[in-house]
Amino acid sequence: MILSALLTSVGINLGLCFLFFTLYSILRKQPSNLRVYAPRLVAERKLKQNTDFNLERLLPSAGWVKRAWQQSEEDLLEKSGLDGVVFMRLFTFSLKVFSVAAIIGVFILLPINFLGNQLLIDFSDLPNKSLDSFSISNVNNGSNRLWIHFCAAYVFTGAVCYLLYNDNAEKLYGAVDQLKSEERSSQRLGLFSNKDRHLRTLEKKLEVTEDNMRMEQSSLHEKEVPAAFVSFKSRYGAAIAIHIQQGVNPIEWVTEQAPEPDDVYWPFFSASYFRIWICKLVVYVASAVLTVLFLFFVLIVQGLTHLEQLESYLPFLKSILTIAFVSQVITGYLPSLILQLFLSFVPPIMKMLSSIQGYISMSAIQKSACNKVLWFTIWNIFFANVLSGTALTQVSVFFEPKKIPELLARGVPAQASFFISYVVTSGWTSLSSELFQLVTLIWNFLRRIFAKEEADDLIISSVPYESEIPRILFFVLLGITYFILAPLILPFLLVYFCMGYLIYRNQLLNVYAPKHETNGKFWPIVHNSTIFSLVLMHIIAIGIFGLKDLPLASSLIIPLPILTLLFNEYCRKRFLPIFQAYAAECLIKKDREEQNDPRMTEFLDKLIVAYQDPALKPSQYSRNTDSQTSPLLQSTEI
Amino acid sequence: MILSALLTSVGINLGLCFLFFTLYSILRKQPSNLRVYAPRLVAERKLKQNTDFNLERLLPSAGWVKRAWQQSEEDLLEKSGLDGVVFMRLFTFSLKVFSVAAIIGVFILLPINFLGNQLLIDFSDLPNKSLDSFSISNVNNGSNRLWIHFCAAYVFTGAVCYLLYNDNAEKLYGAVDQLKSEERSSQRLGLFSNKDRHLRTLEKKLEVTEDNMRMEQSSLHEKEVPAAFVSFKSRYGAAIAIHIQQGVNPIEWVTEQAPEPDDVYWPFFSASYFRIWICKLVVYVASAVLTVLFLFFVLIVQGLTHLEQLESYLPFLKSILTIAFVSQVITGYLPSLILQLFLSFVPPIMKMLSSIQGYISMSAIQKSACNKVLWFTIWNIFFANVLSGTALTQVSVFFEPKKIPELLARGVPAQASFFISYVVTSGWTSLSSELFQLVTLIWNFLRRIFAKEEADDLIISSVPYESEIPRILFFVLLGITYFILAPLILPFLLVYFCMGYLIYRNQLLNVYAPKHETNGKFWPIVHNSTIFSLVLMHIIAIGIFGLKDLPLASSLIIPLPILTLLFNEYCRKRFLPIFQAYAAECLIKKDREEQNDPRMTEFLDKLIVAYQDPALKPSQYSRNTDSQTSPLLQSTEI
Repeated sequence: MILSALLTSVGINLGLCFLFFTLYSILRKQPSNLRVYAPRLVAERKLKQNTDFNLERLLPSAGWVKRAWQQSEEDLLEKSGLDGVVFMRLFTFSLKVFSVAAIIGVFILLPINFLGNQLLIDFSDLPNKSLDSFSISNVNNGSNRLWIHFCAAYVFTGAVCYLLYNDNAEKLYGAVDQLKSEERSSQRLGLFSNKDRHLRTLEKKLEVTEDNMRMEQSSLHEKEVPAAFVSFKSRYGAAIAIHIQQGVNPIEWVTEQAPEPDDVYWPFFSASYFRIWICKLVVYVASAVLTVLFLFFVLIVQGLTHLEQLESYLPFLKSILTIAFVSQVITGYLPSLILQLFLSFVPPIMKMLSSIQGYISMSAIQKSACNKVLWFTIWNIFFANVLSGTALTQVSVFFEPKKIPELLARGVPAQASFFISYVVTSGWTSLSSELFQLVTLIWNFLRRIFAKEEADDLIISSVPYESEIPRILFFVLLGITYFILAPLILPFLLVYFCMGYLIYRNQLLNVYAPKHETNGKFWPIVHNSTIFSLVLMHIIAIGIFGLKDLPLASSLIIPLPILTLLFNEYCRKRFLPIFQAYAAECLIKKDREEQNDPRMTEFLDKLIVAYQDPALKPSQYSRNTDSQTSPLLQSTEI
Repeated sequence: MILSALLTSVGINLGLCFLFFTLYSILRKQPSNLRVYAPRLVAERKLKQNTDFNLERLLPSAGWVKRAWQQSEEDLLEKSGLDGVVFMRLFTFSLKVFSVAAIIGVFILLPINFLGNQLLIDFSDLPNKSLDSFSISNVNNGSNRLWIHFCAAYVFTGAVCYLLYNDNAEKLYGAVDQLKSEERSSQRLGLFSNKDRHLRTLEKKLEVTEDNMRMEQSSLHEKEVPAAFVSFKSRYGAAIAIHIQQGVNPIEWVTEQAPEPDDVYWPFFSASYFRIWICKLVVYVASAVLTVLFLFFVLIVQGLTHLEQLESYLPFLKSILTIAFVSQVITGYLPSLILQLFLSFVPPIMKMLSSIQGYISMSAIQKSACNKVLWFTIWNIFFANVLSGTALTQVSVFFEPKKIPELLARGVPAQASFFISYVVTSGWTSLSSELFQLVTLIWNFLRRIFAKEEADDLIISSVPYESEIPRILFFVLLGITYFILAPLILPFLLVYFCMGYLIYRNQLLNVYAPKHETNGKFWPIVHNSTIFSLVLMHIIAIGIFGLKDLPLASSLIIPLPILTLLFNEYCRKRFLPIFQAYAAECLIKKDREEQNDPRMTEFLDKLIVAYQDPALKPSQYSRNTDSQTSPLLQSTEI
């Protein structure tokens, strides 16, 4: 009954999903689509050695599930870097959180909600109304059963914080630490990536040179360069240069950790501190404006698709629009199609904005874009739906903080069924499209047809973390906020996270190859977003208990967000520095180990040519040197 | 007319001021009061050498004004340290700001306000009403003359920011810089204070010892100590230890800059990171609660002083209370006397709160207390008066930010005459009492009578910055917020700052002796408070132009606070690091200069015994070793 109600609204998206299957099975007959399925394996020339796997990979078997499951975290770390590990940790964390939530929600809260009789269920409209009978709205006002919800809020918050602290932050910290104190045995980049932690940027002219420090400056230009990569004989020496203010004027000589050679983003490399600061400000304002005003913009565009307006703007369509089927499609699906279209442009736009924000590494740009897309998603999908469900004009409530809990408590439960179907339509579908890589498939197909390029010119993409992580974190937010309101969402989320865990494990191991590393810096975003979700849940709970005539419970929830924020503050002190810098203990230990390594001389010689501005490269190596602003990796960018 | 109106309300305070004179002239006949007037000079035994000055110092002549004026800033730096320089810079900054403000306010805004006829002046009650005719309230609603006020807001904000940036932040930065790169020739503490920048704290057991690092541990205890002072052979080495995270766990080994030996506050020296964190939280909450609820508490106490309640509690007073004079005094002056009494307890209470906040130096405690007292003053004197002037129940407006400008625009101008008299009663009087040091005078007098102590056991107090700086900054806030509302306050403030400049210069040069140095860290407080005042002025201006039917001006003011905050953000990046740490450039330069200095060996030997926990001192040196929590300098504390 419930499923049928869901499936009706989901119908179109499942259809789209089947379309993927069909397209895939058509194209599967061409051997060339292998590169799409496992481009990484092709690139690594492993396929030719292990021809036994060929058939299995071609057939739509479930063998990859087994293989994805069997590989250890060490394999993942080796193949996808720490970011891949963090990404999978996000899934295991979510799985644990929502297993706990589902047990409490489905077996305790759901029956209590169903046994209430606050809502008069209209049996004539059962499919649409029945979902509400499982939500907190159905519990009688002032009922003492609400105290069970109250306890659940405390228990769940405790569980999330415990999981955030004990099975993830600490474990992840262990992984980061391990990476810092041990050598990775097999590395894509070999010696370079292995030792590039030596490399640091020392921007601006560095007059106070230490004995163990030498300037790497362009030999082509006679004039002084405003920025330079500086290499050090020891990791510790590099760390000192980063952490101590170099000149008396703190913004005259700025030191920053150097990105890996293939991670450098050149346009802002020699930009002045003041220019970067201005760029950052402008980008902040631009992304805030885009985030807040996006919906209005979409509404305006959608307004143009009304039949009568289309007819007046484009009179020649008049005859077509009179056909019933065409007009139904246009009025029914065009607005949501436009929304989806615009939404799909958001991650690239945010990445573009981040790229002009002054970062000098691709990974920092990706991390910043991830943050921007996350807040964009939360605002434009969660808050816009919740507020439009009650009244879009009430956006002004954000200037009256006192009324926020009540407004959210009215708006959020009303959108429960929408968000349940959203998990299915957006979440489940995105997973299947992820698995079948439709866009890459079509792109490669078209390229093959039109460009006639060589077969070994493969596109091996890296994981688009800036769009994937916000999507997953948004589902975490939905799960946490709806935990006490409408526990029915939890099984759907569990299915999503189970499927996602398997699929992304496969993708990370076989399909994607990391281009650059943030060294696990996505985890603080996960942490902050989870804390935000918890506090949002508490605020809604305050409002709900107020609406349900249980003011005491409403007041007693107030310590919960305060405790959560204190926990967050403690974690910031305890774990955040680990993601930002290396401890002297590790640096000195590694330096001592390497002191007598004969390969060090060779390595230090290599450092001199490691970083080369594409504009200064000899012409035979450069393909895109028309301007100094072209990135080093432009030819491999998608 | 205006002055007479003011003097009426000021009467009682001026009376008090004359009382000071009388008391002083009585006590002046005893030679012993010399120690109060110039205790520092007595202590430095200069008086005996320069007997010529004796007579001049005993007579209430104006000679000290000339001497205070003649001394250069170098003298001030030598005698009162950088904090004294910062304190005087606060006066020169205020003088410049309010000279500009007074010129614009008195010669442009005041005549415009007076020429308006919005208020119907009641000539029968002229002394009380006439003040309002000089305020913006008298300008006709919707008048184009309000655009002059609008321009004045922009010009004044620009001027303040310019002064904050150009003649103060930069100059002060020059002074700090000079102090860092040059030796001070004459120092109270001699070699110690001269080189104590070498000394740094390295809390927690430090396992990764560097070659140039040695642990100074207690030889009396066999067990490991949780905290230690660690000395370094070079300044640069010490800076490295401070700035680089030592252990993998960022809160296991915490490094902090060591205070000077006579600045150490021992109780929290070996406290764990977690304990300090909890203490800090508790103190934040306690001081916030004290700040917010102080007025309610005072109102309750004042409620007890109502005649009928006093009669019911203390029936034996009934006969006395019937006397007209007694009842007038009690109803008229007791409430304000109670308020003043409670207010005088605030700086010591805040200092006490700061002392249990986890700081390990007296100067950090003083700085923190200064901040707490500042916000206490702004909330309890400015906002409480402004809000009670309209309606105290409207405190809930802080949960509806949109209405704040309007509420402030209604409340703030109404209190103009109160704050003008406040400048005279509180500001001018505090200056005269500062000059005559009544409390110290009485204290010394009583001590001499009862304790019969030796004459050379002098109390040389240090400047109570934690109560003085907030007071001055509050006047700056008054001046800035009332600049466009009621420019009449500006001449009174100018007189205050002129007098304060001379008096405090004398006090710093002759009376007070600095006990410890924050190294100019009070300036960021001055900066932040000024920026807050400017933004508050802008918010009030937004409300005022709205009330005066000039919505365009109201909207056009909005960029002003944004620009001011951006300016603040830039200053934070540009100047704040200078107050926090030394640049590598200076450190290395000093280290190289000292490399061949033969006194270095002697100095490094002295370092070992420089820091001694009073609990571990040999008994002949310790007078107060009953508990480990007794501060090193307890015997010289007041």
